[in-house]
Amino acid sequence: MLPMKVFIVHAHPEKQSFNGGLTQHAKAVLEQTNNEVIISDLYAMNFNPVSDRRNFTSEKDSDYFQQQIEDYYASENDGFSEDIKAEMEKLFWCDVLIFQFPLWWFGLPAILKGWVDKVFAAGKIYGGGKWYDNGVFKGKKAMLSLTTGGKLPMYTEIGLHGDIHTILYPINHGILRYIGFDVLPPFVVFGATKINDERRKGYLREYEKRLVSIDETYPIIYPALADFDDNFQLKS
Amino acid sequence: MLPMKVFIVHAHPEKQSFNGGLTQHAKAVLEQTNNEVIISDLYAMNFNPVSDRRNFTSEKDSDYFQQQIEDYYASENDGFSEDIKAEMEKLFWCDVLIFQFPLWWFGLPAILKGWVDKVFAAGKIYGGGKWYDNGVFKGKKAMLSLTTGGKLPMYTEIGLHGDIHTILYPINHGILRYIGFDVLPPFVVFGATKINDERRKGYLREYEKRLVSIDETYPIIYPALADFDDNFQLKS
Repeated sequence: MLPMKVFIVHAHPEKQSFNGGLTQHAKAVLEQTNNEVIISDLYAMNFNPVSDRRNFTSEKDSDYFQQQIEDYYASENDGFSEDIKAEMEKLFWCDVLIFQFPLWWFGLPAILKGWVDKVFAAGKIYGGGKWYDNGVFKGKKAMLSLTTGGKLPMYTEIGLHGDIHTILYPINHGILRYIGFDVLPPFVVFGATKINDERRKGYLREYEKRLVSIDETYPIIYPALADFDDNFQLKS
Repeated sequence: MLPMKVFIVHAHPEKQSFNGGLTQHAKAVLEQTNNEVIISDLYAMNFNPVSDRRNFTSEKDSDYFQQQIEDYYASENDGFSEDIKAEMEKLFWCDVLIFQFPLWWFGLPAILKGWVDKVFAAGKIYGGGKWYDNGVFKGKKAMLSLTTGGKLPMYTEIGLHGDIHTILYPINHGILRYIGFDVLPPFVVFGATKINDERRKGYLREYEKRLVSIDETYPIIYPALADFDDNFQLKS
């Protein structure tokens, strides 16, 4: 896959944050090793995450708004708004998709959740049997890179907050895998606001190792569509 | 607890949607039985879900924006914006909190996720040892009421999308329980756009039963703070 086209969707309100440092470091490291990087800095772009009729320049049903129906219609009629079209182009361009974000309330910051709500449109990005291992983006890789407020022990299976992989399952499986990406294990900086500069530098080095080894990193294993019966239950 | 003060946070872009029907039915049923109901219809309110300096009228650090630090400062200095203050008042007013939403990408629609990101502010809503069963809202009840696109079998433990309770864990445990609510089992309308009117009426009757029995419904059991050691690991 090398050199790779890497698309980083970055969601943090403070430019000088450690999230910002991770994204800038990723860009530098990846470009030094001959890869291409595009960043969507959602706060800097003033991205509007609210999904509604403004997603579209086309209109299928003016009386009743159902996003999926408008998505399909817009997919057929070049009917997405310019901001959404631009993000879709970057998605199709990339080999590797990275979400860089602080874990807020055990999920994506709203600006990034809304980016997904709007950009991952039926017809263009999924639908008609194109999902999971038959998804539009199959063969491409995606990875979450995130910071948490709490320290690592809180995010184990016996930790206060619960297993980080369970917490991230709806994003890894329900968002990234759903549209076909091979999902790499997340890169997680625990207790980001509580650690010192030394530890932060260590995390930057760790992230660098993850980035330059994307091509050799095994994705998270999920069952394949063929493992399910007609009622979408795992075959025994 | 009866009569109850019920706060419904409603997130759907289409007024005539089944989500709208559920919220209107809840209001009618609850008011008929002498409860009080307040609805925050986030789309109708044009709620801005992007968390940034506009959350605040106060400012602790003008060089570096860290939301938690600004949250604490605003909590001490009456520094939240008017829209956030209004939502906080409803939270403190209620006995029962309901989120009504369509499950988008296995999570909250961005407009609702951002409502949480902004309104659930450190200092006022959590922090200083006030979390989980010692949370600010302990003794109050919360419940998710949602619609899904896929049918029920997809959301079982052996279903294609995975167990609905695992999918909702970051919301139930990480958002509602985190600030102290007793979390009732979710009310889920599966395959909302695919079912007929008869089935929809059945769901409305089911929801009605859930609403009038809130007081007798057992919450989801989570471990208590006392079950964890000083390193936030479950004691064995």
